[in-house]
Amino acid sequence: MTESALSPELEAVVAAAEASAASFAATRPEDRAGAIVAIADALEAAKARLVEIAMRETGLTEARLNGEVTRTAVQLRLFADTLVDGAYLDARIDPADPDFVLGPRPDVRRTHLPLGPVINFSASNFPFAFSVLGGDSAAILAAGCPLIVKAHSGHPELSDATAEVALAALRGTGMPDGIFQLVHGRDAGVEILKDPRIKAGSFTGSIGIGRLLADIAAARPAPIPFYGELGSVNPVFITADAIAERADAIASGYLTSVSGSAGQLCTKPGFVFIPEGSALPAAIATTGTDLPEHRLLGPRIAQSFADRRDAILASTGVRPVLAGAIRFDEDGQGWATPTVVAVSLDDFRSGREALVEEAFGPLSILVEVPAGTDLAALMPEFYEGNLTGTLHLSEREATGETENAGELRALVSAISRQVGRVLFNGWSTGVAVTPAQQHGGPWPATTNDSSTSVGTAAIARFQRPVAYQNAPAAFLPAALRDDNPLGVPQAFSPAGESPQWGARWR
Amino acid sequence: MTESALSPELEAVVAAAEASAASFAATRPEDRAGAIVAIADALEAAKARLVEIAMRETGLTEARLNGEVTRTAVQLRLFADTLVDGAYLDARIDPADPDFVLGPRPDVRRTHLPLGPVINFSASNFPFAFSVLGGDSAAILAAGCPLIVKAHSGHPELSDATAEVALAALRGTGMPDGIFQLVHGRDAGVEILKDPRIKAGSFTGSIGIGRLLADIAAARPAPIPFYGELGSVNPVFITADAIAERADAIASGYLTSVSGSAGQLCTKPGFVFIPEGSALPAAIATTGTDLPEHRLLGPRIAQSFADRRDAILASTGVRPVLAGAIRFDEDGQGWATPTVVAVSLDDFRSGREALVEEAFGPLSILVEVPAGTDLAALMPEFYEGNLTGTLHLSEREATGETENAGELRALVSAISRQVGRVLFNGWSTGVAVTPAQQHGGPWPATTNDSSTSVGTAAIARFQRPVAYQNAPAAFLPAALRDDNPLGVPQAFSPAGESPQWGARWR
Repeated sequence: MTESALSPELEAVVAAAEASAASFAATRPEDRAGAIVAIADALEAAKARLVEIAMRETGLTEARLNGEVTRTAVQLRLFADTLVDGAYLDARIDPADPDFVLGPRPDVRRTHLPLGPVINFSASNFPFAFSVLGGDSAAILAAGCPLIVKAHSGHPELSDATAEVALAALRGTGMPDGIFQLVHGRDAGVEILKDPRIKAGSFTGSIGIGRLLADIAAARPAPIPFYGELGSVNPVFITADAIAERADAIASGYLTSVSGSAGQLCTKPGFVFIPEGSALPAAIATTGTDLPEHRLLGPRIAQSFADRRDAILASTGVRPVLAGAIRFDEDGQGWATPTVVAVSLDDFRSGREALVEEAFGPLSILVEVPAGTDLAALMPEFYEGNLTGTLHLSEREATGETENAGELRALVSAISRQVGRVLFNGWSTGVAVTPAQQHGGPWPATTNDSSTSVGTAAIARFQRPVAYQNAPAAFLPAALRDDNPLGVPQAFSPAGESPQWGARWR
Repeated sequence: MTESALSPELEAVVAAAEASAASFAATRPEDRAGAIVAIADALEAAKARLVEIAMRETGLTEARLNGEVTRTAVQLRLFADTLVDGAYLDARIDPADPDFVLGPRPDVRRTHLPLGPVINFSASNFPFAFSVLGGDSAAILAAGCPLIVKAHSGHPELSDATAEVALAALRGTGMPDGIFQLVHGRDAGVEILKDPRIKAGSFTGSIGIGRLLADIAAARPAPIPFYGELGSVNPVFITADAIAERADAIASGYLTSVSGSAGQLCTKPGFVFIPEGSALPAAIATTGTDLPEHRLLGPRIAQSFADRRDAILASTGVRPVLAGAIRFDEDGQGWATPTVVAVSLDDFRSGREALVEEAFGPLSILVEVPAGTDLAALMPEFYEGNLTGTLHLSEREATGETENAGELRALVSAISRQVGRVLFNGWSTGVAVTPAQQHGGPWPATTNDSSTSVGTAAIARFQRPVAYQNAPAAFLPAALRDDNPLGVPQAFSPAGESPQWGARWR
């Protein structure tokens, strides 16, 4: 064992996580589920107190924060369901086959084991749902991995208070000590990420910091997976027919999505491609009068939003549709109303340097596209990976039987190649927490596009597959036993049946 | 589009792969399966000719190479089965739920799409099964990703001949041009890996080269997944009871495993922990007389094996059990018989610098362990990640009801934490190609331990999840449609049922 490079405080944290790893991995899924439900209960019981701190530290509204606590608790409960269901273990059983085409085949059984200690860097913009007890934390604990949370500097008091709630709830659940710890400070997070006892990292935040941390994880003597959810501008395409059918409804849904949480959401629709000369800008201008002012998360985020907004407004051909505003109060906090601008495709193309990057705050850009433009070609021309891409169709177009159906299919296919979630006739903010959810996408939407950061499939991030060959029942993981004591789904590949189709083809 | 950094030849290769990506992704799984079976048929039809080239280029025996072609063809057929079965698409359907606990939930459906063009660096030691048409190539094509194979310099003529077989077979299958290409030269491989149109890399080979390529993949402006299968020493633990029960059978199985393919297998058992004073070394010495000499793959591998062997034999306390030998012929090719040495645990500990690294060739080390040693502690003391770990038990111990059952369970758990496959009473060479197989393990066994490089689960490497929200049937991928035209397994999460257990717990 080499000398630890960590300070005594951080060494104690990592050592405690490591010391709990084997016994936490050995807990029964149902017992981990019980512990997670205990945390969810405690979180909901502490809601009023926690939301009060969160309002002060983040400027988000009480309604939004109350909803976020509920979402976070439900998210924890869904992971408890996932554990009891057992499909997450992906148990596969290939019984021995003495007549296998390549010679006798042994009994091989495969399931997933937890990776070991994980550090989760929490986000600024979701002080509950992507923070101390957020989705990644829930997935890490559900997988059976000791969790170290790096608190976000934007809500330190809330982070401490939330961690206390979780620690109190964990007492008496029978879970080992050391499975849940909180640290503050980016340097502390980086040092922990570098420690050889840490087996994975997760993160929600900016492209810059996410890339920095991903590079650190990849450059370790023993590299580890790093799941960063970074930036996204979430392109939207709206057909002429859809606008003709329901311009006002689209304008209203759009503005709700752009202005919610003061636009500080990674799923905010940043660009909307619409036909030149459509009625949508006017509908947006009408619908968007008197939208309330919202505080941004913190002075640094506000300043950087103000700068991006100025640069966008100064770009050639950019025309305000909804002027919006940003002002700073005596504490340096920024307060904004939504800004929507329009630009022609040509001006977007020539001004792309100024325009194409994410503006984190309540601003969105309408790009007016001449008739006959190949919409499918715009995705790769302007964008790398995104969390989402959206298409608004008319009822008639949704049947797939209109003249432009081929073009629309090509567009859906182009969007699919560059995003994690494709939406129809909806708005990308508000991510449903369900088993089929995919919150991810190619770089720079994420640092690793093999999994999701929202929804119960996220548990796969913190597990790795292990096969057991000819193992006596007494030494098999419970999920792989013939008597299936956990009652999990087991996929069998019976002897004598493989390859079937491949062999019959000739 | 920025100017390509590639030479005109390589630019043409990458451009052809990219040009085929969308249409290849859109092919029906059953049609890709047909193309893969056509390749398997053609490979088997060309067996005699290809094996002749392979014998000359690799020095491997005709029997071994014939078996490898069959294995490679069966492997391709199994991926065809995988495509027709459809479980690889992991189709999940969460119908809309107006009464979801967090408010109305949209219809969300999730499946997997191919990543896009992939480069696969082939291996020296399996000129068929991990080369031009090997497991990764099969998985890449099955996933619907255009494949660029970087040929191994150890068998260039065989690589060209195999690629011709595949290309001829693909003609007439209706697959787009550009989905299968071969390049030679490490520089070419590196340049292609750096190209932004390439979406993943795979590799089988040494830790040094694997790390180099993984670092390149991680450092790209847009990082991509890189699946390298690297080094492994495959520790084995044999109990006193097992040796007392069947020393000769163990000795014989062990020597077959160490000497097969001249020990040039990533799954060769490199270290065997046995009780001090056991009868196994004598049984090995007796069984191992007159083992035939085998040529090593090439002069460089042979020289590096000879050097490792010398260093091991010179280490303090190392005692030959089976002397073995290596000689070089006039062409610089090395010919070896197996070497087995024994060393006490104390001398292993003090000589670890010289001993613990992989010796790629027919050599294995017996470590004699005093009674009372905590075997579970040896795994983390001496090893990082490994592809396999093995335990040999007596019949009585296999029941899990002997006095030492607790220790054995702790050992299995310690092995599980550090390997991809845990074997009982068997030998790690010879990896069954089945749905439950896991050929992987923590660094440095692999650069990415989230998946397997052998077995049909490997297809997951080359796909990424995409969710569709409220998509009209006409625009959904076939796997996600209610009418399920592909007949794939679909996992439903019915409305009104979630969370269940998490909600009921209180």
